[in-house]
This record gives sequence, structure tokens and C-alpha cells, in this order.
Amino acid sequence: MNKIDLHDYVASVKDYPEEGVIFRDISPLMGNGEAYKESIDQIVDFAKDLNVDLIAGPESRGFIVGSPLAYAMGIGFVPARKMGKLPRKAVSASYTLEYGGVNELEIHEDAIKPGQRVLIVDDLLATGGTINATRKIVEELGGVVAGVAFIIELKDLHGRDKIMQAGQVPFLALMEY
Amino acid sequence: MNKIDLHDYVASVKDYPEEGVIFRDISPLMGNGEAYKESIDQIVDFAKDLNVDLIAGPESRGFIVGSPLAYAMGIGFVPARKMGKLPRKAVSASYTLEYGGVNELEIHEDAIKPGQRVLIVDDLLATGGTINATRKIVEELGGVVAGVAFIIELKDLHGRDKIMQAGQVPFLALMEY
Repeated sequence: MNKIDLHDYVASVKDYPEEGVIFRDISPLMGNGEAYKESIDQIVDFAKDLNVDLIAGPESRGFIVGSPLAYAMGIGFVPARKMGKLPRKAVSASYTLEYGGVNELEIHEDAIKPGQRVLIVDDLLATGGTINATRKIVEELGGVVAGVAFIIELKDLHGRDKIMQAGQVPFLALMEY
Repeated sequence: MNKIDLHDYVASVKDYPEEGVIFRDISPLMGNGEAYKESIDQIVDFAKDLNVDLIAGPESRGFIVGSPLAYAMGIGFVPARKMGKLPRKAVSASYTLEYGGVNELEIHEDAIKPGQRVLIVDDLLATGGTINATRKIVEELGGVVAGVAFIIELKDLHGRDKIMQAGQVPFLALMEY
């Protein structure tokens, strides 16, 4: 069975990006073949009954979770990019940053066809702003959010509540802090 | 055998990001499960005799090529991130941007151990600046560049020559433009 404890591959960095905050860095997890594969495979397992057509992930750590997942499932990956990076017609949504300020994400208009079922993933769920912005774009393009999945959920920030307020969806977080 | 022509999944965008330039956008390739898997599998095939320990890719499209490759090979992925995004001690290198300006990439100091063989990948090889910066960091950390691989090579920009000038390495580009 599963002999790996994924928690062993999270680096907890004190006072980053600001004092009093513990940053949960999954670089060691990504950098370890066994832990990385185990993480992705657990999400594949969660996704297998959700009839997923596409994986979407926000720039840029969402790419490191979402693209191997898409590969493993034999489906496409749709990046939700930061503003101004996509060369073709795109739809955007803005969100408030965890440490202040506003950001915008966008997805190519032709990336999702109406009715396609999209699993949205990211490395870490904090306040849920990034995920809800991604979700808004997916739904504006006619996609259906099949579920959301994260490597880490920061429980105290109640991002899960924010996601469910936008509509109940299947939820997975591999680790909670 | 291979029934997919990957060229069919490249969107050529005229006059982007500036007049006279044709931008080769691989979003359609990433968004198609079959084309995406075929691309990654071709790189896996190239890498299989190179004794690769780790995959490294520059932010952020390099993540979409490198992380599924790492997953497929059962090894770790090391992101070369834009300046100021890594929470722990990192080593950096700067490079000149294709359309003017200078940028900096960095990799966590503990991400690569001396002697580890690193395959560096990106979606597109233009002038080679990003790749040579990534390579410089990999080598500074004691890593050995096992090879470089790209989905697309823009021949006219002679990035391959720049890479080879920094030291001959096995090279793969799935498509040339």
C-alpha cells in the first residue's frame, strides 16, 4: 500500500511571504519522483468517476499539478494564465490576492467547449480566490466544473467554504494544514 | 505507428507579440489529450538512454512540458522560477529577453545534488537565453546537463548554436519552424 507520507515532502517556511505566516512549500514533493507520482496518482484516483474531459490549473504552480494529471489521464490541460500572456482571444476573471492586491487570470476562448467537464487543480488552497476566478472563466466558456483538487488545503483560510458557496463540487485535498 | 501530426496542434499567431513575428502557440497541443501525450512520450523516448535523475523547466510553459515528463519517467521536477517566488535559499542567473529587457530565473539550492543528471526542457526554443540561464544554475549547483528538449525550435533564431556553445549536449526538438 501507500508507504509514503506526503507530509515529509512539504517544507514549512516560517515568516514567508510575511511575518507570522508559515509557507507550505511543496518543492521537495515535486522534486521527489516517488512522492510526486504518488500525489498525482491519488488525484487520478479521485477523478476517475468524475467523467473529466479537461484539467485546468492556474499559473504557475497549478501547472505542475495539473499537467502531469492531464498526461496521466490522457486528456488535455488548459492553463489559466496571468493577464497578457495568451496570444489569442481569451476570457478573464479577477481575484483578490492573499497578501493584498488584485490579479487577473485568463483562458483562451477556444480552450473549453460548452458542456466539457473540467477538473480544476492547484498546489495549495488558501482563500480560494484563484480557484473561484478559474471556475468563473470555465463556466463562462460553458464548461462544467467536475471537481477541484489540491495537494494542500490551509484549513484556517476557509477556501473550501468559498468554493462551495459558488456551487457544490467534489473536493479533494491530499494534505491539510 | 504515429498517426498524429503535431503541427496540426500549433496555432500560428501573426504579429504577436510584435509586428512581423509569428507566435507559435502550443495551447491546442496541450489541450488535446492525444497530442499532448504523444509529445511527452516522444521526449520520454529521447530521454530513456540519458540516465536522467531530474527534469528542470523554466517558468511557466516549461512546467507544462517538464512536469508530465517527470511524472512519466517517475522522477522529480525542478522548476526554474522567475525571481522572488521561491521561499527558500536559491541560486539565480539572468538572461536577455527575446523582445528586450533582462529577466532572472532561480532554483532552490537543495533542488539538485552534485552529480545529478538533469534534462532541461521548455515548450519553445527561441534565442536560447532562458535555457542557458537554467543550465548555468543547474551547473552551479553541481548538476550535469543530460540533455535539452523542446516541443518547438525556431530555427532562424539559432538558439541551438547558443546552447551548444555552452557545451555539447543531446538535443531534441519535436517540431521546427
